[in-house]
Amino acid sequence: MDLNKLEQNIISKKTFLCLGLDTDIDKIPKHLLSYDDPIFQFNKLLVDRLSKKIAAVKINTAFYEARGVDGWNSLEKTINYIKDSHPDLFTIADAKRADIGNTSKMYAKAFFEKMKFDSITLSPYMGYDSVTEFLNYKDKYVIILALTSNDGANNFQLKNDLYLNVISESQKWNNSDRIMYVVGATKSEFLLNIRNICEQSFLLIPGVGSQGGDFENVILNSTQNNKRILINISRAIIYAGNDEGFLDSSEKVVEHYNSRTSF
Amino acid sequence: MDLNKLEQNIISKKTFLCLGLDTDIDKIPKHLLSYDDPIFQFNKLLVDRLSKKIAAVKINTAFYEARGVDGWNSLEKTINYIKDSHPDLFTIADAKRADIGNTSKMYAKAFFEKMKFDSITLSPYMGYDSVTEFLNYKDKYVIILALTSNDGANNFQLKNDLYLNVISESQKWNNSDRIMYVVGATKSEFLLNIRNICEQSFLLIPGVGSQGGDFENVILNSTQNNKRILINISRAIIYAGNDEGFLDSSEKVVEHYNSRTSF
Repeated sequence: MDLNKLEQNIISKKTFLCLGLDTDIDKIPKHLLSYDDPIFQFNKLLVDRLSKKIAAVKINTAFYEARGVDGWNSLEKTINYIKDSHPDLFTIADAKRADIGNTSKMYAKAFFEKMKFDSITLSPYMGYDSVTEFLNYKDKYVIILALTSNDGANNFQLKNDLYLNVISESQKWNNSDRIMYVVGATKSEFLLNIRNICEQSFLLIPGVGSQGGDFENVILNSTQNNKRILINISRAIIYAGNDEGFLDSSEKVVEHYNSRTSF
Repeated sequence: MDLNKLEQNIISKKTFLCLGLDTDIDKIPKHLLSYDDPIFQFNKLLVDRLSKKIAAVKINTAFYEARGVDGWNSLEKTINYIKDSHPDLFTIADAKRADIGNTSKMYAKAFFEKMKFDSITLSPYMGYDSVTEFLNYKDKYVIILALTSNDGANNFQLKNDLYLNVISESQKWNNSDRIMYVVGATKSEFLLNIRNICEQSFLLIPGVGSQGGDFENVILNSTQNNKRILINISRAIIYAGNDEGFLDSSEKVVEHYNSRTSF
């Protein structure tokens, strides 16, 4: 899915929400454990229920890798299912990869070819040639960490305006129209600075929900000229309930956030 | 394996070499393709042949992820085999992960528990709390990217001495004695600066071999007070040959590098 279509979907569905599938076998409702693949079943049920009320799905690879081969199998099944059954959802591999060129090429193959994610999150630390191989894919997107939602963002990102430098430098790279940025909702006051240097870029904004970011301020500071943001919420949606009615609980949280959004 | 033991092994085996298993199904000798798991077979043969002449093995996760579930299975088999059959080899997951705390916890579970790697490479961009969960493991190590071997290192790492700041800042974190650093061999002139601020830290040095770093200068500039370095070589060793005699070719490259090392 291209980014213009994603923006149209956001406007027509009236939602900025990205559903974060940080799926942990220890936290899903117990009645799902009898399925062959409880992780996939949980993801499938959530996506089926919420697809009309969200714009994107972000799958956090760590939660799948922690279960080894079984987990990677659940990951592949989940992305395949979403691509086949819900093509109106923009998909994000939250993988935070990036390496030297010949290695990044293999990561790109993993996430853009073997699995058919629309986009992947990348760390910018290694610079332009760690991102190039991903940017060579037409109709695929990279989401570069700029300013993250955690306290550790103070260590390096906020020193010497590194986060702004990451954005302005990466805007010069080939195919920079395929770059989106991660900007944490816990730092909503910085969104105005960021919008000054990348007015048209899509932003992926985590940190609302369990991490406490301010939903209304985030939207106010990032959507003055367009609707090019995704607000990711993971735990606060997927673990809203913990019994057989968990889908109702999750849907209520989604509706609650959408009701606070004006278009 | 703890780092004192690793240093002892380096001295007794008279080698700084880390074998990089960037194993690509398209590049291994064709006669191995008849095995059930050619990737595992290739890795096993190389490690069996070279184990007495190397100090460590680094497995690059990208090359396994590119093959999906099958690749992850080869990855698990490879690390399990090395841990069981060659406990004198220090093992590195070259994964370049790191994320917010509850996600990093899952990555640590994947690489330190589900698989039993001694260490993992991490990107420092997200700061201290993206590393903490890994540092909580006793007898496990994190290898933080400081100065990488690729051209893109100039974008951010070398601006405002970010690479030195990453080292000096991370030295203040809890359990910092469990931190090692990646320093590219293509930047051997910077090793003296780095040794000024982390004299006792183990360094993982990639970029010799196919990337062209200077082997002798790297050793000269990084081992003035101890033998706490690993020099990783991947492609130049594992693809030294491409036929039934490939192990001989690989061994010759290893011996060539070891012969240039004085202890």
